[in-house]
Amino acid sequence: MNYRVVLSILGKTLLIEAVLLLVPALVGVIYQENNLLAFLVPVLCLIAVGTPLTFLKSKDNSMYAKEGFVIVALSWIILSLVGALPFVISKEIPNFVDAFFETVSGFTTTGASILTSKQIDGMSKALMFWRLFTHWIGGMGILVFVLAIMPANNAGVMHVFRTESPGPSVGKLASKLRFTARILYVIYTAMTVIEVILLMCGGLPLYDSLLLSFSTAGTGGFGVLGNSAISYSSYTQIVLAIFMFLFAINFNFYFLILIGSVRKAFGIEEVKIFVAIVVVATVAITANLAVTMDEVYSTFGEALKHSFFQVASISSTTGLSSADFDKWPELSKSILLILTIIGACGGSTGGGIKVARMSILCKSSAADFKKLIHPRAVVNSKFDGETLDRGTERNVRTYFILWVLITIATTLLLSIDAIDGVTVFDNFSATLACIGNVGPGFGAVGPTCNYAFYSYPAKLLLSFVMLVGRLEIFPMLILFIPRTWRKG
Amino acid sequence: MNYRVVLSILGKTLLIEAVLLLVPALVGVIYQENNLLAFLVPVLCLIAVGTPLTFLKSKDNSMYAKEGFVIVALSWIILSLVGALPFVISKEIPNFVDAFFETVSGFTTTGASILTSKQIDGMSKALMFWRLFTHWIGGMGILVFVLAIMPANNAGVMHVFRTESPGPSVGKLASKLRFTARILYVIYTAMTVIEVILLMCGGLPLYDSLLLSFSTAGTGGFGVLGNSAISYSSYTQIVLAIFMFLFAINFNFYFLILIGSVRKAFGIEEVKIFVAIVVVATVAITANLAVTMDEVYSTFGEALKHSFFQVASISSTTGLSSADFDKWPELSKSILLILTIIGACGGSTGGGIKVARMSILCKSSAADFKKLIHPRAVVNSKFDGETLDRGTERNVRTYFILWVLITIATTLLLSIDAIDGVTVFDNFSATLACIGNVGPGFGAVGPTCNYAFYSYPAKLLLSFVMLVGRLEIFPMLILFIPRTWRKG
Repeated sequence: MNYRVVLSILGKTLLIEAVLLLVPALVGVIYQENNLLAFLVPVLCLIAVGTPLTFLKSKDNSMYAKEGFVIVALSWIILSLVGALPFVISKEIPNFVDAFFETVSGFTTTGASILTSKQIDGMSKALMFWRLFTHWIGGMGILVFVLAIMPANNAGVMHVFRTESPGPSVGKLASKLRFTARILYVIYTAMTVIEVILLMCGGLPLYDSLLLSFSTAGTGGFGVLGNSAISYSSYTQIVLAIFMFLFAINFNFYFLILIGSVRKAFGIEEVKIFVAIVVVATVAITANLAVTMDEVYSTFGEALKHSFFQVASISSTTGLSSADFDKWPELSKSILLILTIIGACGGSTGGGIKVARMSILCKSSAADFKKLIHPRAVVNSKFDGETLDRGTERNVRTYFILWVLITIATTLLLSIDAIDGVTVFDNFSATLACIGNVGPGFGAVGPTCNYAFYSYPAKLLLSFVMLVGRLEIFPMLILFIPRTWRKG
Repeated sequence: MNYRVVLSILGKTLLIEAVLLLVPALVGVIYQENNLLAFLVPVLCLIAVGTPLTFLKSKDNSMYAKEGFVIVALSWIILSLVGALPFVISKEIPNFVDAFFETVSGFTTTGASILTSKQIDGMSKALMFWRLFTHWIGGMGILVFVLAIMPANNAGVMHVFRTESPGPSVGKLASKLRFTARILYVIYTAMTVIEVILLMCGGLPLYDSLLLSFSTAGTGGFGVLGNSAISYSSYTQIVLAIFMFLFAINFNFYFLILIGSVRKAFGIEEVKIFVAIVVVATVAITANLAVTMDEVYSTFGEALKHSFFQVASISSTTGLSSADFDKWPELSKSILLILTIIGACGGSTGGGIKVARMSILCKSSAADFKKLIHPRAVVNSKFDGETLDRGTERNVRTYFILWVLITIATTLLLSIDAIDGVTVFDNFSATLACIGNVGPGFGAVGPTCNYAFYSYPAKLLLSFVMLVGRLEIFPMLILFIPRTWRKG
């Protein structure tokens, strides 16, 4: 492990967070709230610790996958630890573990909250801004941001970039990494601005429009109101649904459109599959709601709207709700559960296993099956027009298997909590909602509930699982391997 | 597809079933029940169809994996279709789909029933005998039986054998297949006889002892009484628990002991892991029960007994219950749920994913993870002292991925049923209990409930899933590939 390189990049990240924390502080000043100190204390700590670290020089600038993983994992943990401080200092979330859970949930764009609707509605403007700003920051990745704005003369940053960007294929986006990082942030910011404008057109104030856009752009899912998106107008709900859908699409798509390759953009296999999934799920749920719940969703239009909203919200792993979908019929719920598992496109701000991985899994299993029956046949799986190489296939399979094993283990560990009325399946649903970075699940962690009832160890476990989901497993696991920490 | 070879082996299997059906017919005669016709009608049908098929001669005796798969899949389906007839003719299960579900559940040693406790307690001796006899037949495999007693001069039977014997490694047992098949049946029969004697020593009548032994030897789980194993004495429960445990162990173990290689037997890695799983699960559940349920399981001994019984029952995928474990604390339930997924040893009569597969999965994922961090390191996973070859690893991974995908798809399809009070998670639990060949699950399909409430399409789907679990996925899937049915 090259400690000097790791610490120096961590230092830069701390300074970035100091700058980011000034934004909600400013919001507090504008709204004349008395919470400047809640932000200034962590800012000063960050500067005090971060500045000396950035001056660390190393003779040996070498950086491998290992260093990349460790930098990403530690950055996210430290950012969340510090990011929790404003909640604790302002006493809006007095307990540190709760505040840490909420902040991890923010940065990882999960949107699982320990706050009740009342607590959410009673929150100050500045802290609410910070709570949702973490979604926007975490959506694209903090270190991608570091890469985008800081001069870096280290070839090893590629490892960081590959690790933090969600999905299996971002590296291909463009040959020059820093250029790519900047393009990504430009697309991300532009789309966010458009969403803010459209939401304001629907009559929402700037503050709410901005925060809801943070929530959807990062596919996070924290609500500005205690009842998520239930009380908004149909116009607002539809704008939100469309943007959740758009932010769940592989950013390659927008990049290709930007450079004029429209045809190529629409040819991306992952995007086509994702659109197909969303359409099929929306149609199925609409039909299911229309048939079984005629009293609640009286018109076909209402059923369609709620269905599309929820499908966009869950498949993008945002987690906002326009209705209490935990009360929907079981078929609709199982479709949503499967969308939770699949998740969004790779290279988007969404979570889950990712559409690309799921289709590579299906294709390679089908190929293996064919091979088993016709041992001498030449069977090649293709994805996005290219033959899948064994290495990619293998990585995707390892990823999936570890994902399933971690989900099972977490469900088991959560049930040690033994809370009255919380079943194995509530715990399973909570695990899926956290590892998939969705937020709300079913039952005890349904859209009208929250995660407050879990014990502190369980909250820490779920925070870990959210990070596992957001950083795609390996960076978090590597922290537990003693060999990682060996010098040299 | 070599139709002649397939049909000729199917013919032999039909004749075997005709013989097997005479046994419960005899039981009916002994107990002077009026149900001889219920057995004789299917026997005559089997003879009428089976005899001409066995005379089919083929110039081309070649048989590949494809033919092996098709023979196994079709045999099991046809045997279940015919095996359901006695229930329908005797009107003890008047509906054919219900009877088919019950018979598939019997042959696949699942033990999921559509009968209420009352219906079970009211069943005639002959039909109850047949119901539990299917467990014993299905436990070791019907075609293994065909191999064991019939002269076969076809090298391709190896494919059949490999396909029907549960677990990934049976082929290694001995070089001569028919010899192996006979040895397996000898061990199986001997252990069953010992169990019958021990149960009779506890005061049970021969009839009950025999049927319970069928149920546990095949790791099936149908009960002779409506309340499963709840009302038996502690002695009987402990004997049952021990034999469920013993039948879940890889039969290589007994084979090695039989030929005197005791040391080698105790060195089998899968057996060691399985024992460790059972011990850890038993200790954890005992502690959990003792701490939380002091009223129900007043003494430590009671808690330990029920814990061991249920761990042995679920990990062997038998599914008998000595208590209503659906009322146990959530931690115990999630442990049992994980045991359902893991299942028994390969090469045993038990189901599930199998211990060997799960440990190969974990090891190969860990190796891949190490490789990712240290790309130049030489990382080899070992299982049972031998380096895992890529082919085995790949097959295990394909198996696991297909297993997960089928489980998800089945859960989704079951929820189309939309039955009041049946949740997504009940359906998930039912799917796991059926694909793992366990039988009872949690909630709506818990140990005191049954599967009667599902619609007929859902029952057929679950029957398919039980066959998928018992025949290890591929044989059932191959039926849906059009290319399978091409001539030549």
